[in-house]
Amino acid sequence: MKRVGVAILGLGTVGGGTYRIITEHRDFYKKTQDIDLEVECVLELNKDRIAALGIPEEKVAANIAEVVSNPGVDIVVEVIGGVGVARTFVQAALSAGKSVVTSNKELIAKYSYELEKIARHKNCGLYYEASCVGGVPIIRTLLDGLQANNILSMMGIVNGTTNYILDKMTNEGASYADVLKQAQALGYAELNPTADVEGFDSTYKLSILSSMAFHTKIPYTKIYREGITQITQEDIAYGKELGYVIKLLAIGKQTPAGIEVRVHPTYVRAGHPLASVNDAFNAVFITGDAVGDIMLYGRGAGDLPTGSAIVSDVIYAATHSDIKYSTFKNTANADKETKFVSNFSSAYYLRVTVCDKVGVLAKISNIFARRNVSVCEMIQKDNEEDGKATLIFITHETREQNIRNAVAKISALEDVAQVNSVIRVVS
Amino acid sequence: MKRVGVAILGLGTVGGGTYRIITEHRDFYKKTQDIDLEVECVLELNKDRIAALGIPEEKVAANIAEVVSNPGVDIVVEVIGGVGVARTFVQAALSAGKSVVTSNKELIAKYSYELEKIARHKNCGLYYEASCVGGVPIIRTLLDGLQANNILSMMGIVNGTTNYILDKMTNEGASYADVLKQAQALGYAELNPTADVEGFDSTYKLSILSSMAFHTKIPYTKIYREGITQITQEDIAYGKELGYVIKLLAIGKQTPAGIEVRVHPTYVRAGHPLASVNDAFNAVFITGDAVGDIMLYGRGAGDLPTGSAIVSDVIYAATHSDIKYSTFKNTANADKETKFVSNFSSAYYLRVTVCDKVGVLAKISNIFARRNVSVCEMIQKDNEEDGKATLIFITHETREQNIRNAVAKISALEDVAQVNSVIRVVS
Repeated sequence: MKRVGVAILGLGTVGGGTYRIITEHRDFYKKTQDIDLEVECVLELNKDRIAALGIPEEKVAANIAEVVSNPGVDIVVEVIGGVGVARTFVQAALSAGKSVVTSNKELIAKYSYELEKIARHKNCGLYYEASCVGGVPIIRTLLDGLQANNILSMMGIVNGTTNYILDKMTNEGASYADVLKQAQALGYAELNPTADVEGFDSTYKLSILSSMAFHTKIPYTKIYREGITQITQEDIAYGKELGYVIKLLAIGKQTPAGIEVRVHPTYVRAGHPLASVNDAFNAVFITGDAVGDIMLYGRGAGDLPTGSAIVSDVIYAATHSDIKYSTFKNTANADKETKFVSNFSSAYYLRVTVCDKVGVLAKISNIFARRNVSVCEMIQKDNEEDGKATLIFITHETREQNIRNAVAKISALEDVAQVNSVIRVVS
Repeated sequence: MKRVGVAILGLGTVGGGTYRIITEHRDFYKKTQDIDLEVECVLELNKDRIAALGIPEEKVAANIAEVVSNPGVDIVVEVIGGVGVARTFVQAALSAGKSVVTSNKELIAKYSYELEKIARHKNCGLYYEASCVGGVPIIRTLLDGLQANNILSMMGIVNGTTNYILDKMTNEGASYADVLKQAQALGYAELNPTADVEGFDSTYKLSILSSMAFHTKIPYTKIYREGITQITQEDIAYGKELGYVIKLLAIGKQTPAGIEVRVHPTYVRAGHPLASVNDAFNAVFITGDAVGDIMLYGRGAGDLPTGSAIVSDVIYAATHSDIKYSTFKNTANADKETKFVSNFSSAYYLRVTVCDKVGVLAKISNIFARRNVSVCEMIQKDNEEDGKATLIFITHETREQNIRNAVAKISALEDVAQVNSVIRVVS
């Protein structure tokens, strides 16, 4: 039986989960995978973490040089995060000819091209299933399960923190600020939540997944990004009334004009499979030209779910001699041929506060009509106290630029107090 | 670039879809997979099918011998179905050292052990992603995406025909017989629907998937099976009232006492991800010891969805030199060590028609109590016209045998007209 030695760099949440999975499944993998998988060594500065996992001292490496020069290490797992030492360490491991498994979406989104170059040169593997959608094998599925398809579009709930926040706002009627505090107390959100709530984390994942799905480099910098910090109880409540829930979606689409990639809060119709993805769960809804609609659903984070993806990659690396690199020219920037569409098509939700006077609706309707925006649903709510009214519009599909122009014109109307919200809609 | 020649045996719905996908994606696969994938020949007796697909005469093989002796054929796709010629042809192909890709669940459920034996001997591959859940890459996921996990349980909607029928019964209030006729007219159900509606098709799929998930042979003959022909509008309506929908589930579970494998109509609580799998869609809900809950959802049948799974297997076979066989001793029968549990645990729904007299409920409650069955919900509906009442019980988890004993005793009570339905419940 083949013995496979693993080094784990970093013993935070995911590193700890990875250690536990490998250690506790040793006999199971002997029986089911015909390999003797063992943690050869770990690299971690925090002694408490090492003690908490009960790792014997002789397995604790002093530095990265010791790890990569250890002939007992076949595969290096990087779960440090960030693009500082993580980047240097992964470079070192690959340069030493060790296959690398990582959960580091920022590293892969930003530097997969340089890392893959070393891996190809050294004929070793670079695996990053755990970088996207936690335990859900979305990358394996794109590579080896749906590869017969030209993927037309993907829509994903790929960030657990924001889905948790939106879910609580929807089901408990709490404000964004209050739910964020709760989520931070529970460890579901970081103390500095920017990467999650402003959508950066989702853009890294969308960059990785859409590059793979569309077979061309999609830099994360090309992705339109809007976070969830502006989402209000009012918009959630009006959405409910109209049969929608708000989700932070990462959307990638191939269109005749080019590729659309965007991360933004989106109304999803209640019957859509993505609408019932609650709590900190994640899901990716993919449309392929042959398979049609397909969805993968599961936990997007956590020690064991993400550890599941890491260890599955480790086993894959240990039991397959074929290495599959990117199916596209993996470079720092997009191919010159790749066209990105920023003036994309969507349906829209608009919430507008107006003075409750005769003629306002007609003026707004005229602005829509002149910009080719057709309304498919409208609600009016009068507030008798202040003489204001709230108008909610759901439009048919139109171009982003038409909406922006219409919103500018509507905001400038004398009887319009404010255009409160503009949110895209998927049905 | 490597040229890969494919033979397609059978040009029915799935064979036609496979032909179209390969032919229409030739340039796409050159670009994205670095292979030149081509249909080298087809074997089909029906000339109309050949003509409809526009297949040139020189690609039509005369017989299986011509196919397997053709050096231009690298991979043989079997989409004939059944276990007659399909079995012989697959044996012939493997014996000639050609890798085989098939969508034939009956063939794999019944004969994978003998076919895999030839494949191992000849060092070629046997791939059957398309045999289960159409275009959804569930087998690839079990093999290469969740293999770090000890899979604790799986619950699947793996038959599109029955899901379509139950969905229409639920949403349109039509009877089983009427919806079946509709489904037959639309081509969603066979003229002889037994394999689908009696659950045989689901047992083949559960046999394949649970063998793989639990790393031991689960013969389809070991699977408890109940079809949907007895499901009535009454039970659907009462289920709705209680917050459940009825689905035909294929369930596999590892328990301390052994393995449970069963196919039967099941009430699924409305919030469960499986509850919203509508129309002819399929889904498999898996719980792994590391990944937790995960679900794959997509089209379980159809020319292009199933063709997607076939061609993805073909590409996998063409681009990977490693061949992975079953991760268990693949034999005709189960291992002697494998224990199967028939007296499994479940919650239950019972519908009972009683004479509306004092004391009936007390008698029934006593029978439950003596058999350790605890009721968690009850509805009583009186029918004033005939002096009868309908009692609906939902029980907590109990053993199958307890329920069967209770039902026998309840049926024998003087004031009980009939135990109309006993349906298992998943929450």
